[in-house]
Order: sequence, then C-alpha cells, then structure tokens
Amino acid sequence: MLSKLRCCFYGSKVRERIAVLLFQHKSKKQQQAESKLSTQKTTKMELGISTFGEVAPDSGAGKAVNAHQRVQELLEEVKLADEVGLDVYSFGEHHRPDFVVSAPEIMMAAAAAITKNIKLSSSVIVLSSADPVRVFQNLATIDLISNGRAEMMAGRGSFTESFPLFGYNLNDYDELFSEKLDLLLKINQQEVISWKGKFRAHLSNQGIYPRPLQSSIPIWLAVGGTPSSAVRAGKLNLPLAIAILGSPPQQFVPFVNLYRESAQKAGHDVSKLQLAISSQFYIAEDSKQAADEFYPSYEKLMNRVGKDRGWSPMSKAQFEYLRNDGPLVVCNVQLAIDKIMQQYEMFHNTRFLAQLVTGATPHHKVLKAIELFGTQVAPVIRKELGVEKPAAVDAI
Amino acid sequence: MLSKLRCCFYGSKVRERIAVLLFQHKSKKQQQAESKLSTQKTTKMELGISTFGEVAPDSGAGKAVNAHQRVQELLEEVKLADEVGLDVYSFGEHHRPDFVVSAPEIMMAAAAAITKNIKLSSSVIVLSSADPVRVFQNLATIDLISNGRAEMMAGRGSFTESFPLFGYNLNDYDELFSEKLDLLLKINQQEVISWKGKFRAHLSNQGIYPRPLQSSIPIWLAVGGTPSSAVRAGKLNLPLAIAILGSPPQQFVPFVNLYRESAQKAGHDVSKLQLAISSQFYIAEDSKQAADEFYPSYEKLMNRVGKDRGWSPMSKAQFEYLRNDGPLVVCNVQLAIDKIMQQYEMFHNTRFLAQLVTGATPHHKVLKAIELFGTQVAPVIRKELGVEKPAAVDAI
Repeated sequence: MLSKLRCCFYGSKVRERIAVLLFQHKSKKQQQAESKLSTQKTTKMELGISTFGEVAPDSGAGKAVNAHQRVQELLEEVKLADEVGLDVYSFGEHHRPDFVVSAPEIMMAAAAAITKNIKLSSSVIVLSSADPVRVFQNLATIDLISNGRAEMMAGRGSFTESFPLFGYNLNDYDELFSEKLDLLLKINQQEVISWKGKFRAHLSNQGIYPRPLQSSIPIWLAVGGTPSSAVRAGKLNLPLAIAILGSPPQQFVPFVNLYRESAQKAGHDVSKLQLAISSQFYIAEDSKQAADEFYPSYEKLMNRVGKDRGWSPMSKAQFEYLRNDGPLVVCNVQLAIDKIMQQYEMFHNTRFLAQLVTGATPHHKVLKAIELFGTQVAPVIRKELGVEKPAAVDAI
Repeated sequence: MLSKLRCCFYGSKVRERIAVLLFQHKSKKQQQAESKLSTQKTTKMELGISTFGEVAPDSGAGKAVNAHQRVQELLEEVKLADEVGLDVYSFGEHHRPDFVVSAPEIMMAAAAAITKNIKLSSSVIVLSSADPVRVFQNLATIDLISNGRAEMMAGRGSFTESFPLFGYNLNDYDELFSEKLDLLLKINQQEVISWKGKFRAHLSNQGIYPRPLQSSIPIWLAVGGTPSSAVRAGKLNLPLAIAILGSPPQQFVPFVNLYRESAQKAGHDVSKLQLAISSQFYIAEDSKQAADEFYPSYEKLMNRVGKDRGWSPMSKAQFEYLRNDGPLVVCNVQLAIDKIMQQYEMFHNTRFLAQLVTGATPHHKVLKAIELFGTQVAPVIRKELGVEKPAAVDAI
C-alpha cells in the first residue's frame, strides 16, 4: 500500500521513499537511540499555515479573474490567521497557470502591511533558480515593512518550471542550490561582501541594501526526503522544514535524527535546532464534514499534479487511508489536536505548518478552518506543551 | 549660469544638457511648429508623487533603524496620498546605503495592500539590470493585490550600482535596456511566448504567470534627456516620463516634440500619448517656510550625489535660482498651482509627478506637504483643466 502512495511539492515520490527506506533498514537498537535523540526537549511550538494559492486557470490570457479573486482571498486568509493568533503564514512559489503565487515575496509584502504579529515566510522560494541578492533585498524590505517579521524557507524546488524559465539546467539541481545558499547566507551576515561562484556574477566589495530590522533574516531549509539535505541543514545549523504528505510520519524519524546528528557532529547546539513539520490540512466542526469539504480540492490537486508525474488517479480509499493512518490532518478540532501532538511526540518539532489545500473549497469554509485552527486547536496545543504564545519578533 | 546647473536621477548632467542644446539650435520657425504640436489637447491630468526613500545610512551592518523608520514613513506617505485623492505614487530603485528602496515592487505591494484608489508605480525600475520575467510577475501580482492599480516606469538607470551588482556591463547600457524592454513588452501582451535575446536565457513556448487584472500592465519609459530615448518611446507608442531637475522646463519642449513627432511618424495617435513631467517638490503654507524646510534635505542630497559625480557643492544662490526660475516646485500652494499650470501650458502633459526630497525634513512636515498637494493644489488644477478625478482603474 505504502509504496503506491504519493507525495508531492517539497519532495518527489522518490525522495519521500528514500526516507522510508532509511527507516526500514535501521536496526531496533539504532531506532531506539535515534528516538532518544529526537525527543530532546524543545522550547517552542509555532503553529502556522502554508499555501500555494491553487487557482483554476483562466481560459486564456488577459483578465485574470480567478487569479484576482484568489489573491484577494489569500490576503483575507493571512489577515485572519494573524487575528486568531497563529504564528506564521507562508507562500509557496510556482510558475504555472494553476498556482497564483510565482512571486512569494510580493505576497509577503502585501501581507506584511495588513498584519501585526504573524511571521511571513515562503514555502518555498526556489532558491536554485533565483538571485540571492534580489531575494535578500526583497526579504530585508519585507522585514522593514513588517517590523521584523520576515523569514524564508529556501528549497531546491519540487516543481521544475522555474529552471527553463530563468535559464538554469536541471543537471545543476543541487550545485545551484548549494552555491546560491552559500551566497545568501553570506549576504545575510555581511553588509559589504566579496564572493565568487559558478552560476552568478562575482561580487567585489559590494554593499547589499537595505539591511533588515532583525539582525539577520531567519533562513530555513525546506526539504523533501533526500538524506543529504538533512545533513546539509544540520551541518549549517539551519532550521529544517519537512513536508510529510504521502507516508506515515513515523517514517521520517530517522531523517530528523540524521539532521540532529549532523548538527551535533558539526558542534552545534542540538537543543536550539528548529524543525517544522508540514502536512496537508483542513478542519471543520465535524470530521466527516471536513473530509467531504476537503476531498474535491485534494482530488483535483493530486490528479492535476499526478498527471505530470505519472501517478494513478486519486481514489477515495487512498484518501481515507492517508486521513486515518497517514499524515493528512483532515478532521475535527480534537482529532487535529491529537494528530499534531502525535507528530510532536515523534519529532519534538518546533513548528507545525498546516498546508491548506483549498482550490475547490468555498472561501468562507477555508476561513472557518483557519479560525478553528487559531482559536480552538492552537490554544490547546500551546497549553499542553506549556508554550507561551511567542512574541512575534524575538530577534529585535 | 545654466551650464553650471546640475541635474540628477533619471538624467545625467550630460543628457539634460543635450535636451537644452537641442532647444537652442532650433530656428524660431521650428520652435513655433513644435509649440503647435505640443499644445494638442489632452484629456487627463494625473497628479502624483515619486520618492526614492532617501535615508541616513545606519552606522554599520545589523539593525537598520533608520531604514526601518523610513520604510514606515513611506507607507504612511502613500496611505495619505491615497486618502487625499492623489492619482499615483511611485517608488524608485537604488542600490546604495543612502536610499532605502532597492526593491520597488516590494514597496508597491505593501502600498497596494493599504490603499484603495491610488495607482502604484516605479520611478524607476532599472530594467537594464533586471529580469523582465521576474519584473512582470511582480507587477502582475501587485496588479492582482491592488485590484488593477499597478504600473511601471522603466528606465536605463541614472545611478549605476545595479550593473556590477547583477553582473552587467555598462558598455551594454542601451542594448541591455532595448532587449529587456522588448521581452517585457512581449510578456505583457502574451501569456505564452517564445523569445531569443543576447542577455537572457531563451524562452521556448513558456507561460508567464500570474496574468494581471488589467488587460496589460501600463509600461512607461522614464528618460533623462537623450534624444534617442524620446524617439524610442514615440516609435513604441509608450507613455513618456521626464524628470526636469536642473534646467528651465521650456528647454524640454523640443524633446517632447521629438517624442510626439516620432509617435506620429510611426502612425500612432498623438492625442492619446501620455506624458509625465516630474520635478522636485515641497510645499508649505508659506513660500519662505517651504524653502527653509526643504533646503537642508535638498542640499544634503545634491551634495551626496554630487560628490560621486564631481559637482561643485550646492549653494543657496543656485537653489534660489532653481526655485524662482528653474523647475523646483518649492513654494506655497498658489505658486505650486501656477508652476504646475505653466508646465502644462508648455507640454500638455497628462501627469505631474512631485518628486519628494525629504531626507532631512521632519516627517510630519512631509505629510503636511502631501496633504496640501492633495487637498489644495490638486482640486484647483483639476478644475482649471476640466479634468474629472479619474477612476483609479480605467482598464478593467
């Protein structure tokens, strides 16, 4: 059954499968040792939302009515998420007619201007095909607009449309990311830099402006399931974001341990590592209602993406399996609390990101799900974990 | 005297001087014929503000307190400009520690989210060193956020910091602009395009998303005084923006005529051409007060920029000359009305952009100047010209 399950977005089917195999080939003893490492006490739990802005493409070029409506809805969603006290809201980059966000920083900037406390992030910015100088300037400006609430999740890209669009070769997939991350991290630390690389013009004692309000922009690595990505994040002491979409969450424990081990080996303080777990999410007063309202959006998305990737069509049975025994958080309030807490017990993650899938769900129902998440799910989880609602900005 | 005057920003001293020479070498008859062409009736007059976001650099890397304050002030300024009924607000791109806006689209997006009617523009986006695909995606997204209020002024760049920063050669100054403008205009018209050029990766049947709400993004050419720029804008039937900063405005009449002649020769409807005139601007209840409050900001800016460009230091006498007989609109309400109307008589421009210079002026006084512009200057000019306050979006 599992091998037939699908995953998407941050991780390809192949990469998520690697994480699963990594788990299955560990001995009992290794698993116990890893479990110990993974249960180290963390000090915070942020609860937030990520979106890709799915949209029904307009029939042709010209007036983008659907896209317009979707953007307006996204702004309402982030405003509400802020009002109900959620901690973070992130926008994901795609370059396709069926997703409205190709410029996550632009959406983040608009969101920054109409919110007060919520952190604004990207899930993800495809750093491999972006210019780190522009990305940093965008984020620093958003940080100044938001009074220090900007952050970034950087990824190699699960969808590949951005590579030919910006003139990059998929053969350089990892090397591109590695080099651009190196430059971005340097710009984030230094106002004036000199730098040489293979994929971008050299910089010679040049200043990058403006500087952010925070001492630096928090940069997360968002990954699929490739072990070397966990090692990279650990070695670099960077926060890690994992999307668990098509496999049982426990199969990611070795992957998370690999991250923490890599950080420990590199001499970093493991207790300070940040980890985000993201799962597809929709809640309603009643679990069956949640499933019924969510499934049309989910089926549509999975089949549209699956068409490009050679997946068999989504079935109700697969959906029910993923909802009951897999990572999908599509249920009522109490079951959502239980599922997020189960994940926490497994990973001791510092953040849970609810990945909204909303293409065919009426907007007012999506808003209701956000409201329930902020007002009924989040307070219980914070109480159970003894987590103070964190100040919006902890780095100023 | 004139030859010693300075100009900056859109146009270098040299380029503004070319426009002056162009004027001086025309015969009386030519000047009369041109004057006739330049007085063709226009149907609208938009009144707006442009800003570069001057800022006192922070002492070092790290917390950008001055930049933070300046960004917050800019957002207050655009909000007020919208509230007092001004038609357009634009942000200019610079990559220096003394200007806070390196990412105008990010500021436009934030402004879009907190305003209702005002158009959001860039003065300028340095298109020569940008990627037209990203620029279009940014602007289309801003258009969706703002319900169709996004536009762009594209320029070759007067400051040159962006060229080495993004790996471009100043030797390609015009060729870069020309090629990137070509791609941008095509993307603006077509959802899916194929394109080949010298400075950017080819595009082969690729879609650029999202599409804007307006049928296309209004793209203006912002120029200094180079005659070939006027010819290009006219031939392409694009709106033209001229900054008149250091020379008497009438010396730009031949330049504007060259624009209109070029459009006419290319078969375009001259009566529909749009023309923006931009001048440095500050008003107060009393003219002397305006001069006293403006001069410290102006002197600071001109001397800082002039240091890089080899200008002699600004003097009070030069300032008074520019204020009384030159393009500076630094005065009381009535004199501002007179000066803007004189410009209109000369150019029949469709837009006046007040270029705020505010680095050393207290913020509440800048807000007062915006309020006076919107509530006392703009209504009189609209009435005199019989201009209806235009609907914010005329292209939806």
